[in-house]
Amino acid sequence: MSRIAYVNGRYVPHAQAHVHIEDRGFQFADSVYEVCEIRAGALIDAPRHLARLQRSLDELNIAIPMAREALLLTLSQVAARNRVRNGMVYLQVTRGVSPRDHAFPKTPIRPSLIVTARALDITAGDARAGQGVSVMTLPETRWTRVDIKTTGLTANVMARQAARAAGHFEAWFVDEHGYIVEGAATNAWIVTREGRVLTRPDDGSILPGVTRATLLDVMTGEGIGYEERAFTVREACQAAEAFCTGATLIVMPVIAIDGQKIGTGCPGPVATRLRAKFHAYACREADKQR
Amino acid sequence: MSRIAYVNGRYVPHAQAHVHIEDRGFQFADSVYEVCEIRAGALIDAPRHLARLQRSLDELNIAIPMAREALLLTLSQVAARNRVRNGMVYLQVTRGVSPRDHAFPKTPIRPSLIVTARALDITAGDARAGQGVSVMTLPETRWTRVDIKTTGLTANVMARQAARAAGHFEAWFVDEHGYIVEGAATNAWIVTREGRVLTRPDDGSILPGVTRATLLDVMTGEGIGYEERAFTVREACQAAEAFCTGATLIVMPVIAIDGQKIGTGCPGPVATRLRAKFHAYACREADKQR
Repeated sequence: MSRIAYVNGRYVPHAQAHVHIEDRGFQFADSVYEVCEIRAGALIDAPRHLARLQRSLDELNIAIPMAREALLLTLSQVAARNRVRNGMVYLQVTRGVSPRDHAFPKTPIRPSLIVTARALDITAGDARAGQGVSVMTLPETRWTRVDIKTTGLTANVMARQAARAAGHFEAWFVDEHGYIVEGAATNAWIVTREGRVLTRPDDGSILPGVTRATLLDVMTGEGIGYEERAFTVREACQAAEAFCTGATLIVMPVIAIDGQKIGTGCPGPVATRLRAKFHAYACREADKQR
Repeated sequence: MSRIAYVNGRYVPHAQAHVHIEDRGFQFADSVYEVCEIRAGALIDAPRHLARLQRSLDELNIAIPMAREALLLTLSQVAARNRVRNGMVYLQVTRGVSPRDHAFPKTPIRPSLIVTARALDITAGDARAGQGVSVMTLPETRWTRVDIKTTGLTANVMARQAARAAGHFEAWFVDEHGYIVEGAATNAWIVTREGRVLTRPDDGSILPGVTRATLLDVMTGEGIGYEERAFTVREACQAAEAFCTGATLIVMPVIAIDGQKIGTGCPGPVATRLRAKFHAYACREADKQR
């Protein structure tokens, strides 16, 4: 089946999905995005994704291109037209097209909206989670506003590529004090030997992950204790477990950091349980939307 | 006359100049650019721009899309087809089009190349230089690799917009120690009361400006003393003169910083002389290319 993308009001074949070269998303990374999980044909955590999108747009003073309800419908339409039952929908909003100039256009322009969808193999994801992944750490190189989900991802690209080139799945940024910040495209977590789940607080130094927020809710529901506090690379290496979260990754057990085995060197019971609980939550969400 | 752009091997009408939505320049700011002055129909400082482009590409591991000579020819062609005698040519190279994934594509892809040209009004530029401009300072917010000329410009856009909104022409970033780094799209300079020209060294904390480098050569030729060292906001406010440099701005006198008058509050003799000397240099370069 040929894929369909939504671009500025039209559903177009993926191969013909284009934006103008003076789109400010292309020339300035003046643009934000969201990636939302699709499970059993339903958008998971859509309200949280749209709330975060709105926040990103507000921070950059970009107008929302359409009302929330219409946006939700567009996301669902793109998923449906691509027959994606399980996978992800990608949404990007840019300030729009305007003759090149760093400052915002003097008269308001129409923001650009692009939506694509892609199927993901649940079984492959679960198989990878069954194995666990390794991460490497590297110094934080990003700008100071990583709390905004912009497409200014050059640093993330370089970090993720450095990790891949060294045989790792993800890169974890480390701040100047030795604390782990987050991954190039995921949030970072550990489980201490005392069984406490730790993740860095949403204090402006991380992208407030939607899966992160929902997982905290899931833990509260399950009576699993957690603490939002920063932890060092040393603490992570001595932890019982570690894992990453992200909208398409869900909960991904980390079995090694910088080549050092975490816990037993296998996916731990807490991460494995949280992954299952998140899947269960997503299925309930999908049921509710039927 | 309708404008023409060069996009991936074709000269197309500007209105139909598009890139694919999965161009990594659009989704990841995985892309670099150059802006080169055109004076009397000639490319000014083209060898330095191409050398910097090559360095940016090397740092991001992007292949150069065509040989240097062909690239030069393309820049000239775009200028000529748009009948730009005085103005600028803009060149952007992205890693290319690939299904969305932070890490580089596993098999090499063809980089994208986009070139546009635009006429600029020399008289208007000189008139603005005759008046001088004001700048405001703000804390450095950019990533650690500002020495690479990427299109990851969200921080620069926000800074330039903050300056414009406050009635200033440019924003100067200030590091955590109170030293001026550079402008959102220009390099920063002062002239001390002792007549010494200062600009921050090319030590990785700035984008190594082509106009900056050429101006240093011009000063050497003219026997004008300079020093490459960082200066504080306080030093700048107490300076005899201040100015910005950039490929389309040339030498732009700064008459106020954060609302504080610099020197007499008018464009100073050193900046004015350097602007004239740079124009003369550009005209000689254009003559040589005839």
